[in-house]
Amino acid sequence: MHIGMVGLGKMGGNMRQRIEAAGHTVTGYDTNPEISDVASLAELAEALPAGSRVVWIMVPAGAPTLAVLEELATRLEAGDLVIEGGNSYYRDDQTNAAMLAERGIGYIDAGISGGVWGREYGYGTMVGGSAEDVERAMPVFDALRPDGPREEGFVHAGGVGAGHFSKMVHNGIEYGLMQAYAEGYEIIASRSDLVPDVAAVLRAWQRGTVVRSWLLELLVDALEGDPGLASVDDYANDSGEGRWTLEEAIDNAVPAPTISAALFARFASRQEQSPAMKAIAALREEFGGHAVRRADER
Amino acid sequence: MHIGMVGLGKMGGNMRQRIEAAGHTVTGYDTNPEISDVASLAELAEALPAGSRVVWIMVPAGAPTLAVLEELATRLEAGDLVIEGGNSYYRDDQTNAAMLAERGIGYIDAGISGGVWGREYGYGTMVGGSAEDVERAMPVFDALRPDGPREEGFVHAGGVGAGHFSKMVHNGIEYGLMQAYAEGYEIIASRSDLVPDVAAVLRAWQRGTVVRSWLLELLVDALEGDPGLASVDDYANDSGEGRWTLEEAIDNAVPAPTISAALFARFASRQEQSPAMKAIAALREEFGGHAVRRADER
Amino acid sequence: MHIGMVGLGKMGGNMRQRIEAAGHTVTGYDTNPEISDVASLAELAEALPAGSRVVWIMVPAGAPTLAVLEELATRLEAGDLVIEGGNSYYRDDQTNAAMLAERGIGYIDAGISGGVWGREYGYGTMVGGSAEDVERAMPVFDALRPDGPREEGFVHAGGVGAGHFSKMVHNGIEYGLMQAYAEGYEIIASRSDLVPDVAAVLRAWQRGTVVRSWLLELLVDALEGDPGLASVDDYANDSGEGRWTLEEAIDNAVPAPTISAALFARFASRQEQSPAMKAIAALREEFGGHAVRRADER
Amino acid sequence: MHIGMVGLGKMGGNMRQRIEAAGHTVTGYDTNPEISDVASLAELAEALPAGSRVVWIMVPAGAPTLAVLEELATRLEAGDLVIEGGNSYYRDDQTNAAMLAERGIGYIDAGISGGVWGREYGYGTMVGGSAEDVERAMPVFDALRPDGPREEGFVHAGGVGAGHFSKMVHNGIEYGLMQAYAEGYEIIASRSDLVPDVAAVLRAWQRGTVVRSWLLELLVDALEGDPGLASVDDYANDSGEGRWTLEEAIDNAVPAPTISAALFARFASRQEQSPAMKAIAALREEFGGHAVRRADER
Repeated sequence: MHIGMVGLGKMGGNMRQRIEAAGHTVTGYDTNPEISDVASLAELAEALPAGSRVVWIMVPAGAPTLAVLEELATRLEAGDLVIEGGNSYYRDDQTNAAMLAERGIGYIDAGISGGVWGREYGYGTMVGGSAEDVERAMPVFDALRPDGPREEGFVHAGGVGAGHFSKMVHNGIEYGLMQAYAEGYEIIASRSDLVPDVAAVLRAWQRGTVVRSWLLELLVDALEGDPGLASVDDYANDSGEGRWTLEEAIDNAVPAPTISAALFARFASRQEQSPAMKAIAALREEFGGHAVRRADER
Repeated sequence: MHIGMVGLGKMGGNMRQRIEAAGHTVTGYDTNPEISDVASLAELAEALPAGSRVVWIMVPAGAPTLAVLEELATRLEAGDLVIEGGNSYYRDDQTNAAMLAERGIGYIDAGISGGVWGREYGYGTMVGGSAEDVERAMPVFDALRPDGPREEGFVHAGGVGAGHFSKMVHNGIEYGLMQAYAEGYEIIASRSDLVPDVAAVLRAWQRGTVVRSWLLELLVDALEGDPGLASVDDYANDSGEGRWTLEEAIDNAVPAPTISAALFARFASRQEQSPAMKAIAALREEFGGHAVRRADER
Repeated sequence: MHIGMVGLGKMGGNMRQRIEAAGHTVTGYDTNPEISDVASLAELAEALPAGSRVVWIMVPAGAPTLAVLEELATRLEAGDLVIEGGNSYYRDDQTNAAMLAERGIGYIDAGISGGVWGREYGYGTMVGGSAEDVERAMPVFDALRPDGPREEGFVHAGGVGAGHFSKMVHNGIEYGLMQAYAEGYEIIASRSDLVPDVAAVLRAWQRGTVVRSWLLELLVDALEGDPGLASVDDYANDSGEGRWTLEEAIDNAVPAPTISAALFARFASRQEQSPAMKAIAALREEFGGHAVRRADER
Repeated sequence: MHIGMVGLGKMGGNMRQRIEAAGHTVTGYDTNPEISDVASLAELAEALPAGSRVVWIMVPAGAPTLAVLEELATRLEAGDLVIEGGNSYYRDDQTNAAMLAERGIGYIDAGISGGVWGREYGYGTMVGGSAEDVERAMPVFDALRPDGPREEGFVHAGGVGAGHFSKMVHNGIEYGLMQAYAEGYEIIASRSDLVPDVAAVLRAWQRGTVVRSWLLELLVDALEGDPGLASVDDYANDSGEGRWTLEEAIDNAVPAPTISAALFARFASRQEQSPAMKAIAALREEFGGHAVRRADER
């Protein structure tokens, strides 16, 4: 199969290699001319078979993705198919698909998990779209997904949006899982009098225990590469899917206490000063005359 | 009525004034000779009517309180009554009462709320002990409690321990209330583009609204005295009752999500570096190649 | 002053009485002809002075409010002023105001707190809009707000949207406060062996304590009217502002653990069966062989 | 190696088989004579080599374990070694070890993870005790732990108590992980309009994704065996370690928002009626006149 790929960065570049390793052909376009096969989206479209083109978009979510989609809408034609593989919000997929559908262009949203390890292990792949569009792109999905039974690393989750929706919730869960490990890690670390080597305990959880997982293995790796995580600041970004997952929970009246707690912990980690905790400190002083630490005593 | 008071600090000193203002006599003992009426607990005991002494203890919880109790056990005699007015853990009251009961000395635990404002407004008073001990000390409780119907500022909550138990939960609730106001304050403050003066909004909530309360008034005062709480560090202590309340919830299988959240926010506010959030940042780098902020980039 | 009021239900009807008691004239319109002064919005507009009309809208948020606004846009004219007093989402205010501004009609959003007690005590009032519009409507706001200093019961919080935004966060805080009291109540109630009468403890918190508030007084009233709250089901609705507050926190990266916990507790209270807890139970059986309770064993 | 095992139930019986499969000899004692090799602990002691006995205890935590320990203290002698393999609280281990040490008997606390699958896959094993005691029992630990590098399935975490402490935190993390998956599962399930088959999504997460784990595989198994988990009630027990982990977090001022949320969700799942949510409903009626659902309307 011959597909186009827009965006050859960390994710797109790795995915291209995995797709090619499966015997397919990829013509890539990137705004960086040094890694791009063609000079423009127009040239990319020309390089692919008109009316049966498949173009995978792998650029940052939001404005960059939208810009590519809007230009592709004018470069592609009826019968072509676009796969949005970035981290788009699933409601945007529905808008995007409608825009392309007006021109007869198909649309699949593909949520891709696996990070920098995906090239080697394969990418967990969740897609949304019509059955026939998905079937058409199946060789690419089979190239990307991990070895093993298809249904353990790939799912056609539903209509347009269902792929990114599934990936969004996947990431929301991921936030909760990471926070749970992180709390347990800190609790053990707080008792170094009893357990001198917290990393050794986590290492021993990798086989046989109930908490064994890939994230645990990564945490063990991180601790082995950087004992005590001494080089890392306690500053945790979030990339949007956690927020969307929580908003989805709110919209559907689903209690999500751990996912929200994990998100809020990240928010707090990035605050230089917390207005809320200043308010708490000020209140304690007001009612109890409790000494507060002044801002210039930090 | 003539009582003894052990501990004449910020709380004890104010309480003494309120008791005296109600026409009672207080002989006070403090380790600081400058404010003490007598030189020792032995002298304090001598100053009071043997066999019907009432001694109020108002010293820091834990070891200091226990030390006073142990000495009083040898200085007092059958028929006397001790009132533990500090923030003792309610289970300790039960031990303390048993120790004194062996010598025929009565015991009341009194939880006292109102902070530095209590001298003026009266102290919310929650007590535990036998009906006859409570009745005997009632003139003192009536002096301490706020004006108005007795049952709106005083409660004989149950047997020994019930007073401090009630005060403990009172403080646990207080943590949750403070945190709720603090979160709302921060949300408004985060939208200074829309609401330029967050303090003005809180000020306007003092009358008529559902959220009006004394804590709100204190927060308004704090914001008026220190706009933007600029002088206060975002560092919030906790004094034990919040922890005990949460442990009580755990013991009785009661969900306590806001009280725990409020307590954890204080814990986090005091951390120079959060091991948990270092772990989150390290994990993000491991699986996603996400850039992390290094410890030396703070 | 003579104003129009659209919506004479529980809130609107009470507010009309308070406005009239302050010496103003209110012409009211309601879809229920039995309580309506005029037969239509057209008649309402005719009854007011053209070009300086003030019309207060007090109907359910969302579609009903929008329908009234859209009709008023055609019945009013340049120089008139609409006050949206319901629980509209603050972003909708900005859309609404723009629509009316095209016709020269002014717009104020007014967040109103105080519930069924507002007629007697006055309504906490938070408004957004232009300074001149607010000044024009000030006699009505002064009639509605509680007695006492204006700034303790009324705030012009900012431009259009700022009133409902402030009310929204007010309600978010309210959720957290209620949940904190509720948790404390349950913790005490769980120890009826130690504290036989939880209501007596709450009653005694009304004066002098740090947790005294109007909500506490209402909880005491509720417990006195219905001991043990025996007649009430543990089913708690939410009306939108809590969700919006949480979404605002998410948008602005503000940690809001107690507000979210309070909202989630309400969500959970309304579930007949929790899919999440079924999953937990199933997992426990899977890995540990722990007995689970079957659905037909409830 | 020849060891004694006390308690041949679900866990002990499986462990015995795994130990024997590794070539060791196990003399087992159980209160159920049908599965017991010997009639009493006295007989068990006689069957083992005096002064170098190793006895593994695998009975329910708390009183049953203590009873066995107390009797063993009289049946064993200096040089013997007891391994407490149940879910004892780690502080109890320190008491237990001291009691046995008075008689020269060694003590190891062993936290064992893996549930009903451990016989096949091996048990994650975390132990606390002296280096020489651990070395002596190492053949048994090697038999129990999973295949693969020893340090990935076994850890000598520290002195007495460190094994059960590590296992305790392991279980606390497990609570958080389970809750995170459960919340995500419910969020997807709430959108069956978009994702008709939630189980298919989870199944596809087993390979390549960031959230892949053994717990996820178990959840997939559960959903395949019981679609929609229709047969399972939403009633989730907790077995103590989650509570202890949270108490440990409190003691050490470690924020643990997800572990606490997970524990509270289980508490709530078991309540027939929530006093807290009754209070919320009652408050809503008090201040807002909001209709509440009556207890007899359920």
